[in-house]
Amino acid sequence: MIKKTVLLLPFVLLLFAFLPAKKKKVIFFGDSITQQGARPGGYITRITDLCKKEGLSEQFDFIGKGVGGNKVYDLFLRFQPDVLDQKPDIVLVYVGINDVWHKTSSGTGTDFDKFGKFYDAIISTLKRQGIQPVVCTPSVIGERNDFTNQQDGDLNLYAKWIREYAAQNNVPLVDLRRIFLEYLQKNNPDNAEKGILTVDRVHLNEKGNQLVAEEMWKVIKTLK
Amino acid sequence: MIKKTVLLLPFVLLLFAFLPAKKKKVIFFGDSITQQGARPGGYITRITDLCKKEGLSEQFDFIGKGVGGNKVYDLFLRFQPDVLDQKPDIVLVYVGINDVWHKTSSGTGTDFDKFGKFYDAIISTLKRQGIQPVVCTPSVIGERNDFTNQQDGDLNLYAKWIREYAAQNNVPLVDLRRIFLEYLQKNNPDNAEKGILTVDRVHLNEKGNQLVAEEMWKVIKTLK
Amino acid sequence: MIKKTVLLLPFVLLLFAFLPAKKKKVIFFGDSITQQGARPGGYITRITDLCKKEGLSEQFDFIGKGVGGNKVYDLFLRFQPDVLDQKPDIVLVYVGINDVWHKTSSGTGTDFDKFGKFYDAIISTLKRQGIQPVVCTPSVIGERNDFTNQQDGDLNLYAKWIREYAAQNNVPLVDLRRIFLEYLQKNNPDNAEKGILTVDRVHLNEKGNQLVAEEMWKVIKTLK
Amino acid sequence: MIKKTVLLLPFVLLLFAFLPAKKKKVIFFGDSITQQGARPGGYITRITDLCKKEGLSEQFDFIGKGVGGNKVYDLFLRFQPDVLDQKPDIVLVYVGINDVWHKTSSGTGTDFDKFGKFYDAIISTLKRQGIQPVVCTPSVIGERNDFTNQQDGDLNLYAKWIREYAAQNNVPLVDLRRIFLEYLQKNNPDNAEKGILTVDRVHLNEKGNQLVAEEMWKVIKTLK
Repeated sequence: MIKKTVLLLPFVLLLFAFLPAKKKKVIFFGDSITQQGARPGGYITRITDLCKKEGLSEQFDFIGKGVGGNKVYDLFLRFQPDVLDQKPDIVLVYVGINDVWHKTSSGTGTDFDKFGKFYDAIISTLKRQGIQPVVCTPSVIGERNDFTNQQDGDLNLYAKWIREYAAQNNVPLVDLRRIFLEYLQKNNPDNAEKGILTVDRVHLNEKGNQLVAEEMWKVIKTLK
Repeated sequence: MIKKTVLLLPFVLLLFAFLPAKKKKVIFFGDSITQQGARPGGYITRITDLCKKEGLSEQFDFIGKGVGGNKVYDLFLRFQPDVLDQKPDIVLVYVGINDVWHKTSSGTGTDFDKFGKFYDAIISTLKRQGIQPVVCTPSVIGERNDFTNQQDGDLNLYAKWIREYAAQNNVPLVDLRRIFLEYLQKNNPDNAEKGILTVDRVHLNEKGNQLVAEEMWKVIKTLK
Repeated sequence: MIKKTVLLLPFVLLLFAFLPAKKKKVIFFGDSITQQGARPGGYITRITDLCKKEGLSEQFDFIGKGVGGNKVYDLFLRFQPDVLDQKPDIVLVYVGINDVWHKTSSGTGTDFDKFGKFYDAIISTLKRQGIQPVVCTPSVIGERNDFTNQQDGDLNLYAKWIREYAAQNNVPLVDLRRIFLEYLQKNNPDNAEKGILTVDRVHLNEKGNQLVAEEMWKVIKTLK
Repeated sequence: MIKKTVLLLPFVLLLFAFLPAKKKKVIFFGDSITQQGARPGGYITRITDLCKKEGLSEQFDFIGKGVGGNKVYDLFLRFQPDVLDQKPDIVLVYVGINDVWHKTSSGTGTDFDKFGKFYDAIISTLKRQGIQPVVCTPSVIGERNDFTNQQDGDLNLYAKWIREYAAQNNVPLVDLRRIFLEYLQKNNPDNAEKGILTVDRVHLNEKGNQLVAEEMWKVIKTLK
């Protein structure tokens, strides 16, 4: 009996080798940019393509959970059903633009200190539940590169907080704001307010979606 | 044996009658109006006095948990330490003014639909934990009685939602907004924007504190 | 010689009777509601029809000078070219909605006291130049009839100021806000926020355009 | 006869040399910073001192016309009585902070394009009347030097417009925003939001008043 089992062992191991490892479930948690990211051409679709191209499709599942107009406390309010109940392995949080923008567009932006409290409530809960968070700084509202976009100061402030929070809490960071600003310094010679990485100062065009996809993918694939 | 016990019964009952019943712990959960309410002359202090006058001091403990500038999501963020951890029996929630006011004073008011979600999260949790909630409509921002205060429409909207929520969820209501508007119809002949029930259009003067105290006390004492 | 002239007099008078009287030039000075008012079905087009129906087409020329997004100070900035240079006889000023609305939609509403100053600068100049002004109160932002539209308080305040200004300065008034509110009390049983007189809470549908046309026409035809 | 006149000429010239030249009347036209500038220790008072120290007191009269809370259209509304009727020779316009700030502090900031229109109306009128304008960019709302003050983007935008306007219209410029930012880069090592040049993020402390005084005086004295 023993011998037979021993003889069979290589085949059993071989069998496991062909069995797919459990895929990592990656949730993108955010606002309208993420909602559009799940469309054809969107950044989540492009990450799926990048993953496939590198032969890692068996290792990741990508799921978009973006809702237009969302601020950090909207994420908080739908955190349980949209994220925790989905049992993800990795969650990328990409939020902050509406928290700043709504201050003037509807009078309902998010106070700076409350932004941090809700943000931390989300990230801390993920960590406590053994889910890997990845945080992103808010990209842009307006693409002018001479620091004259109305919300530049506030976006810098909220982005700076996220950077410091990520460092202090050892959370992987995709520093989209820094990446966008550097890109726009080089690629926006006419100081246009849109049309470089966005279609409308905020929502991503093809280049914007590709840039976000590449930068996020760089971080995600280190987490396998 | 039985006879003896029966004879003792009146004495035992008498004993219980003198034993203090456990006092009900009442928390007032709100913004700067509630913060000031705990001061001498404030509405919480006046409720304590009303309670004493009616000989019910042994039945209630009143505790103010108001913080200046608070909106509904600020209450939510400090709900655990400031309310639940205190093991109250009754919680009066008096919030909504800053949710509306901050729309123009800092660009960080609370969206109408999110107001309801955070509000419900607080009240539902209280009920689930066997704590008696009491809700209050937001009083006033400006005392003019001809419907020309800037935030009248929004305050009416948020107050209406609280009224309907209270009715649907069988939660006792202190309808401060209605009470204030009726008072101002009768007692503000010059259509002044402050000085009748408030010192500054929002924060309560002596009459305002007394009115709130009386109206809240009417409801609280039915909950013993 | 004298006799001949006397004989000719009836013919001369007859001649004048057939000569068209100089038409009164009426300018509608306002925002997007007025801009749309000049379209087919718009309130200015409907006033032209009402005028024709009453056989008064030879007496009035109607000209729309509405620009989307305009506040009172936008009217002021284009007052010279768009109004004074056109040499009108009558000018209807219909403004105020954006002055209130932009407070939360872009953070650039008009302070109440400055609204009055620019308004008065326009009306006073018209009067000094012998042009007949007609003023209108701002209609609605939201059609709910239970006083819960966000801007109700502010619209009431600005409308009240216009009413008092008109009375004090003896300027004909079309009190659109009062007229709309009365109409909505009767004709909005479901408390809808749009669809009764507006398509989108602000801009007029057919019924709204017709109501404005009728109410303005009532006043205009008294000015011939 | 000729000889006598020639002999007298030096005395006549000497006479004129002792006659006081008509003083240049300099008006500072602005908001609360300018209102406070006229106080002891304020920037206007300091300019008066600088002028005296350089022995030029006989050449300039300095008059403050600052009003708290003023935006560009407030300057416009009191332009005639406060500036033109005073028959000044030189007018420094220092405005723009409230135009940006009020967007979030009261919902009544000034649209960017309207800012330019009212600004130009003021400067053009001064030039047409032979009065020398001097323009200033708005200094700061918050002194953090890492571009995280909420209004940094908007202040940069409005300041940039003023710079370009000054260049295109050949108007002397005191570029306070650039001067403040350079100062804060060097002198705010802790990235404090106030206390370097301001007492409260906006209004000038001693150093701020001195800096503004020196920079303005440099320009003013070239205009004698």
